[in-house]
Amino acid sequence: MSRPLLGVLGGMGPLATAHFYRMLIEATPAETDQEHVRVAIWADPSVPDRTKSLLGEGPSPVPVMLDGLRWLQAAGADCVVIPCNTAHAYVEELVASTGVLVLDMVTAALQSCQAVRPGVRRVGVLATRGTRAAQLYERAASRLGIEVVQVPFAVQREHVDTAIRTVKAGGDLAKAARSIETAARVLHALGAEVGVAACTEIPLVIAGAGRVLPMVDSTASLVETALVRLAVRTGP
Amino acid sequence: MSRPLLGVLGGMGPLATAHFYRMLIEATPAETDQEHVRVAIWADPSVPDRTKSLLGEGPSPVPVMLDGLRWLQAAGADCVVIPCNTAHAYVEELVASTGVLVLDMVTAALQSCQAVRPGVRRVGVLATRGTRAAQLYERAASRLGIEVVQVPFAVQREHVDTAIRTVKAGGDLAKAARSIETAARVLHALGAEVGVAACTEIPLVIAGAGRVLPMVDSTASLVETALVRLAVRTGP
Repeated sequence: MSRPLLGVLGGMGPLATAHFYRMLIEATPAETDQEHVRVAIWADPSVPDRTKSLLGEGPSPVPVMLDGLRWLQAAGADCVVIPCNTAHAYVEELVASTGVLVLDMVTAALQSCQAVRPGVRRVGVLATRGTRAAQLYERAASRLGIEVVQVPFAVQREHVDTAIRTVKAGGDLAKAARSIETAARVLHALGAEVGVAACTEIPLVIAGAGRVLPMVDSTASLVETALVRLAVRTGP
Repeated sequence: MSRPLLGVLGGMGPLATAHFYRMLIEATPAETDQEHVRVAIWADPSVPDRTKSLLGEGPSPVPVMLDGLRWLQAAGADCVVIPCNTAHAYVEELVASTGVLVLDMVTAALQSCQAVRPGVRRVGVLATRGTRAAQLYERAASRLGIEVVQVPFAVQREHVDTAIRTVKAGGDLAKAARSIETAARVLHALGAEVGVAACTEIPLVIAGAGRVLPMVDSTASLVETALVRLAVRTGP
């Protein structure tokens, strides 16, 4: 009888969660409050840094994420989204412990690339070092017959990592946008036909990069997947 | 040991909740994810329309709000905010049923008026018809020695109600902003020294009104009160 409930395991980072929620609302065809999606958001930014953990430099984020996931489960969430690409390295473990249905942001983003550029062979990915270390995009892409291109580590460190840190700290967004544009140029030079903003901080500073390469926003892909799953909107 | 948890009883409307959450993040002094506030958001937009209920034209929103409040309580929320002015008509009843500490958005907004204009006597309020019918601002203002001015009902219907409905429907925000500016001119003519955007949809279209009258954003006042309560920042 009750309408479906979307669980959001958020806070990684908080701004990315707020951005996801706002995009979800804007993408929902609704004239009144009552037509919008029912959402429960657990945004605990004290989740340990995912990249540090994947690089062996910090504690596992899994216990704190499990706390949140259990609360969303108890709240009656029909499915859960995690608006953080890097956190997807832990999805298998989280699902095994809870049985919760977690929508896959990484596959959703790659499928958006196929929609933007049908027959795409080479996708450029802008992500955290954690996402790279866990090979999240490489593994999902191989299942779809796509090759992933990444920026060299010097560009990663100087431009991508810096931009992500700037967004998380609420810093100079215009400067961060220029860094992401530089990284997009490198991906383009390496043969990428489409780029993915594969860290939920990056879509906030993606405008310049979009002039270099068609850019897919992984957050938008996750919104679309969630709306299809909740039957608010049918898939393409 | 665990850091405090802010509960948000949201969805009234969804965009106002997303706006509150984003403002909370932006107002928090933090360099990393981990320094941000822990937040649980229950955003069930199926809560029946508060204004219709207060005008005797629809069912009570209290049962659905109580469901949400109980989830936030179970999640361990130390205090709860409700980013919807009109919903404050039900706070007494909600607190009596649950014992949850609900921060008072209406008083927070009026205190912001006193901070913006020390010694202020007359505050203009832009609100829903529900907030007006429940005399939420009038009652809180009388405790602070402030007089409340409201727009005549024709202006309410033609400009304020229309603007709120437009924001909720994701409509033409520029047009809604012009309506709110017109209403602010009327409040100014009626002697208001400061205006309050006393419906959480209005701050989204407040820019023009701010050129007519110093405008207090009730959402910003609630953010500030929450941060003080959570000891993220100490009061002025």
